[in-house]
Amino acid sequence: MSKPIDFYFDFSSPYGYIASQKIDALAARHGRTVTWRPILLGAVMKITGGAPLPGIPLKGDYARHDFARSAKFHGVDYRLPTAFPIASQAPARAFYWLNQQDPVRAKALAAALYHAYFVDDINISNPEDTIAVSARSGLDADKLRAALNDPAIKDAVKNEVDAAIELGVFGSPYIIVDGEPFWGADRLDQIDKWLGTGGW
Amino acid sequence: MSKPIDFYFDFSSPYGYIASQKIDALAARHGRTVTWRPILLGAVMKITGGAPLPGIPLKGDYARHDFARSAKFHGVDYRLPTAFPIASQAPARAFYWLNQQDPVRAKALAAALYHAYFVDDINISNPEDTIAVSARSGLDADKLRAALNDPAIKDAVKNEVDAAIELGVFGSPYIIVDGEPFWGADRLDQIDKWLGTGGW
Repeated sequence: MSKPIDFYFDFSSPYGYIASQKIDALAARHGRTVTWRPILLGAVMKITGGAPLPGIPLKGDYARHDFARSAKFHGVDYRLPTAFPIASQAPARAFYWLNQQDPVRAKALAAALYHAYFVDDINISNPEDTIAVSARSGLDADKLRAALNDPAIKDAVKNEVDAAIELGVFGSPYIIVDGEPFWGADRLDQIDKWLGTGGW
Repeated sequence: MSKPIDFYFDFSSPYGYIASQKIDALAARHGRTVTWRPILLGAVMKITGGAPLPGIPLKGDYARHDFARSAKFHGVDYRLPTAFPIASQAPARAFYWLNQQDPVRAKALAAALYHAYFVDDINISNPEDTIAVSARSGLDADKLRAALNDPAIKDAVKNEVDAAIELGVFGSPYIIVDGEPFWGADRLDQIDKWLGTGGW
């Protein structure tokens, strides 16, 4: 049985959101599964010296336009959130907390959090907003609130991010197929071909 | 009659090279022509604060790998040049000098220069190498040598680059279709759809 595909993403990343709507179905067409792995791009950018796209001269304006155009190209509901970009510790912690108990539900929660942010314009960087979205997905609000402040959960997220950086992950989405890394929602076509041919 | 598509690229850019092999045929399928416009990414990066991809931690290694993989994905001959990245004043000046006389030949020269750099590993940042490649394309070496040192040609290139930056061009390839900008060889699929549908 093949190893799952690793899907790294930041909850604040429009291209990560677009890929999140596509990657499981794409993998399934090739008989593969996907492990979702939220990261914190802020920590990654300390290594690469990068800055969030929206603030870069010329590139920022283009990026905002391209987010929406690319979402439409891929048939994905999207609007630029009012608060953008955001720190994504709260949703990442919620994800990894639930993932320790139930990875299938954790993936569904990640999809709900992405939808809340990029469709319903809910600022999931606020812990209480992440908790409210999670509660609507059936999670216990009080337990999650405790988890978001639990040093062990904070450390678990930090360890996941450090492990990702160690593997060379520097952006969102970043998808690793059998050791082969692909960066960007615009590499989904290459991933599809790679899975079909075993590389080229 | 539709306006030509504007194709901005740097002679040192692998993704620009990949797009250069695809853009005219893609446009022709939609009854459109393409104006080639070399730029100097070094001047652009002074505005955006960017740095050449290959030197960025994590991203640089990925990029070198992705250049080759993307070339194969698109069926384009490619090898990473020994000298990379390079300053591209010499080939850009050669192009714009010839372009003043004969845009069709100038495009063929650009293709020959790209091929020399990314297939034959000739360092076209050296004026004498750009001259040698151009001479093999039938140009007069002495006239071109004089042009490469002509302040009027240097100014013409500078004006082209300034005009591109004014339009928001910040990368290579950067392709403008009826005012709609697309950045990257990985937007060729969106350009194809855009030309087919008139936008979405």
